[in-house]
Order: sequence, then structure tokens, then C-alpha cells
Amino acid sequence: MFISFEGIDGSGKSTQARLLADRLRADGHDVILTREPGGSEGAEQIRNLVLNGPTDRWSPQTELLLFNAARRDHLERLIWPALEDGKIVVCDRFADSTRAYQGSTRGERRKLVDDLHNLMIGVEPDMTVLVDIDPNTGHSRATERNTGDDRFEGFGSDFQVTMRQAFLDMADASPNRFQVIDGDGTIDEVSDRIYAAVTQRLAQNADA
Amino acid sequence: MFISFEGIDGSGKSTQARLLADRLRADGHDVILTREPGGSEGAEQIRNLVLNGPTDRWSPQTELLLFNAARRDHLERLIWPALEDGKIVVCDRFADSTRAYQGSTRGERRKLVDDLHNLMIGVEPDMTVLVDIDPNTGHSRATERNTGDDRFEGFGSDFQVTMRQAFLDMADASPNRFQVIDGDGTIDEVSDRIYAAVTQRLAQNADA
Repeated sequence: MFISFEGIDGSGKSTQARLLADRLRADGHDVILTREPGGSEGAEQIRNLVLNGPTDRWSPQTELLLFNAARRDHLERLIWPALEDGKIVVCDRFADSTRAYQGSTRGERRKLVDDLHNLMIGVEPDMTVLVDIDPNTGHSRATERNTGDDRFEGFGSDFQVTMRQAFLDMADASPNRFQVIDGDGTIDEVSDRIYAAVTQRLAQNADA
Repeated sequence: MFISFEGIDGSGKSTQARLLADRLRADGHDVILTREPGGSEGAEQIRNLVLNGPTDRWSPQTELLLFNAARRDHLERLIWPALEDGKIVVCDRFADSTRAYQGSTRGERRKLVDDLHNLMIGVEPDMTVLVDIDPNTGHSRATERNTGDDRFEGFGSDFQVTMRQAFLDMADASPNRFQVIDGDGTIDEVSDRIYAAVTQRLAQNADA
């Protein structure tokens, strides 16, 4: 089973992905915890190329090609082999982040994002956990921990509102894949909600 | 005017591209001489990522995405601005090399190469000079100068025969764009042939 975590910056999705992996391992599952962009050796090198330097270093189209190159490498070298071995893959961000960040913020580029994905990637996670929070909460969390090394952190609250809506729209369009989780509350409370949703899905898969 | 040079390894195309640029400059033209993969700062960094390391470092699909990312950057940062300034761009290799090397050697991947090009690049040179030589000549020239830093040199003569045919087939399919030049003879003889063909095309464009 391939599970992705999505959400705006500061939603807590990275923490929650790690906690879910820990709990599934405690239940005896073999779990790979990974992230995008990056996740495999080659993809991490592409990640460094994309994310370092000034924000206008790459055009939107070049950046999109580099993100897809990283994703292809990540799939081939890490995700697909792990799934074939019967492992659970928990991935912090996947193609929905590209749809949101590259597809909704820079003009009418969503069709290009989708066409390139369909041509070169062509797969979706089995389940996507969308950790949904109020954008003002997300903005202050993201600003607090901003270390300056990730330029996606450098956006303001209006941007977060747009991104949140982009994720919610995708969840509406793919209700079978997405599970929207209320990200408000303590870390443990949110983790319990996610764990309940994921174990229910695992049980359904086992029955099928 | 955007002129690309294509041909198998050892065809002399890089030397001939440089000589053509020199002669056009001597005629008073403003000429940019460049190459692929690479040609712009970002594209050269992607080139280093693609060409260094073991040959199986990247899958064919990931490699194709990286080549297209480099090409997009090269077009946006160097080629398109130069053409807008009225310069002549002479480029050692362009998309036809991807069609030949990535499209004909690793299974039925040509359609993917074409689809990705149409989606993310979408342009062709105004004129493509195909420097055509006997593959055995090309193989010995390429082996002589092989410095070990370019893995495309590491292929044998059968491979050269296949690549030559791939380029000739493309020239047949696009006779208006391609100019096939006999690469047999001294460097000066071949340079004269190319210069004659290019200046004729420039004169036609000036009349049009």
C-alpha cells in the first residue's frame, strides 16, 4: 500500500507521516518512510538542483521537468521495489503537491502538470492523507521553523489559503483516494485520527 | 536563424559547427555557438548530473526528463533571447540527438520521446546540418579521442550504424529542415560544403 501525505506548510504532515510509520511498524508492518522531492539518491541530487539558489533560477516548465525526473527516479529506485516486496510506503508529498504548487500558482499551468504526469509518471498513491488546517495556523507554524533553506516556506498567508483550497478541490475530485483529516488539535489527537483512517483502509484491503 | 548540427560520434560535427560560426562571424553576422546537452548555466549543471556516474544511474525515462529539462533551460536562457536579438544560433546537437540516442536504441521509446518534446519543447531548428560519415570512420575517430568523460563515446560500431540510419531517416522525413552534408574529406572541404549550404539558406531567408 502506497500512502502519501499532503497539506500546506505547517500542517504537521511530516510529523504525522513519521508517527504513522512508527505506529504501523509497531503493528508489525514493514514500512518505508520517504519524502518528495527526493527520496532516492538520484532524486535527492535533483532536489538539491531545484531547491537551492534564487527562486527564478529555473522557469516553471524546467522546474516541472526536474520535479518529474526526481519523481520517476524515486518511484523506480525506491517506491516500486518496496511495494513489490509487500511493504507499506509512506511518502511525505507526492504528485498532488506538484499539482497544487506548480499547477495553481503560476497561471493556467495545471493542464501541463497533468499531461506531463500522465505521460511520464502515470500512477497515484492508493491513499492520500490530506492534513487540513486553518491557513493562519499553518503560516505561523511554518514561519516559526523557517530555516531559510526551503524556498516554499517563503510564501505568505494568502498563498496558504490558495494552496489549501487547491488540496481540498483535489480531495473533492478523488474522494476514494483522499482522506481529509482535521489537523487541528494536539499531535497525538491528529495522529489517532490518521491511524484510525489508515488501519480501516488496510482492513478493507485485506478483506478485498 | 537557429542552426543545429547533428551526426554520429566522430562525424566532425563539433569542429564543423565551430568553423561555420567563425566564417559567419567573418561575414559580419552576430553568432552564438552553443551545444547540448548543456549550453546555459542551469543546463550544464543538469548535463553533469546526467552524464557523470555509471550508465545505469538513471532510467531511460528519468534521463529523458533530465535532457528535456536541460533543453528547456537552454532555450529560455540562451537560444530564444539570442534569436530575438537577431543573432544566428549554431548549436552542436539538439532534439534530433535525443530522438536518435534515446528514441532508437532502447526499445520502442520514440513515441515517448516525441510526445515529451511536443509537450515541453515544441520547437525545431530552422535548419539542421547532418554531417554524414561512414560509421567505421566515425567509430575510429571517436575512439581515438575518447577521454572517458562522455559515456556516449563508449559504444561500438554497430551502434554507430544504427544511429547513422536514425539520423538519415529523420532527414528523409523532414527534407526542408535537414541538409545532409557528406562528411568525407578534409576538414576544409567539409566546411566549404556546409558554408555553401548555409549561406544559400540565409540568402533565401533574406529574399523571403
